[in-house]
Amino acid sequence: MFEAPVQRLIDELGRLPGIGGKTAQRLAFHLLSVEEIDARRLATAIADMRDQVALCRRCFNVAAGDLCAICRDTRRDDQLVCVVERPQDIVVVERTQEYRGRYHVLGGSLSPINGIGPGQLRLEELKGRLEPEGIQELIVATNPTIEGDATALYIARELKPLGVRVTRLASGLPVGGDLDYADELTLGRALAGRSEL
Amino acid sequence: MFEAPVQRLIDELGRLPGIGGKTAQRLAFHLLSVEEIDARRLATAIADMRDQVALCRRCFNVAAGDLCAICRDTRRDDQLVCVVERPQDIVVVERTQEYRGRYHVLGGSLSPINGIGPGQLRLEELKGRLEPEGIQELIVATNPTIEGDATALYIARELKPLGVRVTRLASGLPVGGDLDYADELTLGRALAGRSEL
Repeated sequence: MFEAPVQRLIDELGRLPGIGGKTAQRLAFHLLSVEEIDARRLATAIADMRDQVALCRRCFNVAAGDLCAICRDTRRDDQLVCVVERPQDIVVVERTQEYRGRYHVLGGSLSPINGIGPGQLRLEELKGRLEPEGIQELIVATNPTIEGDATALYIARELKPLGVRVTRLASGLPVGGDLDYADELTLGRALAGRSEL
Repeated sequence: MFEAPVQRLIDELGRLPGIGGKTAQRLAFHLLSVEEIDARRLATAIADMRDQVALCRRCFNVAAGDLCAICRDTRRDDQLVCVVERPQDIVVVERTQEYRGRYHVLGGSLSPINGIGPGQLRLEELKGRLEPEGIQELIVATNPTIEGDATALYIARELKPLGVRVTRLASGLPVGGDLDYADELTLGRALAGRSEL
């Protein structure tokens, strides 16, 4: 129905997660109606990112060079490694400004139903970092989901015997939240993880 | 916070209509994690569309060449022109398979509040088509909104004196709809536009 180049763009946009057919069409016509330079800037940004960005050789964070900005930072604490599922989780932890260690990106969490076993995660690479980097503690910051918890337990079981401390982010009530709105699982975790006053 | 090429892509994606910061970030990381060829195909589709697609010289529809597919089609009825706001509206009318005339894309509707007066729409271009193309009837298919109605009335007032019939799409109850759910305005229009059985 549309001219071929328009239809091709609609198809490509529709492949993006969370972008349906209607939205893809709207975005394509938007990109057709804006100034040419604006549309081309988006195309260039996509290509540039693929040209210039890869995964950090050490921690698998997003990196513009061989090592990511955090691995290049010499002021970071080498003994502490925060283990996350995806590169974007690093940004969330960094925003707290409470963490000065390094990171390790697993590339997902254990999910047998989706065919993701230990071999699909970067666990061997994590194991390989322990000794050379003198890592003392792994803070497992996988999501507080069944898969994230299973991944944390797996890491604890596999890597604690190698002499590293393995900890998990606390689960509990969100700060500023209302007890009324807490689901039972979260409240249960908050109870189990209660602290002395 | 992100490496510069990633941040640039997030910024560009965030400029798209209806794409907020969170979504832009999700899309950027998606484009980073998919196969390189898939990400580049989207970049190419955007650039190709801007390379290959322009507006039809005659009706301002999207066109891969000088004239759009509909203007190139010699079997179309030259005497009948459907006037729409945007190129994508043409696809909607075409889907009915009830229309075999040509089109004219105004590029919007009259909206003084947004600074869109008759000079911002392609009305002179429409006027210029009447005589050379022997147009007998303009079917105004602008949206059934205040702006669309105002545009239709303006066209009728300006172009009817030139000897062309100006008609408007019927407003009324959607087929398959329920009277219960009809708003008063639509029902009012349906009453006013009632037809003899």
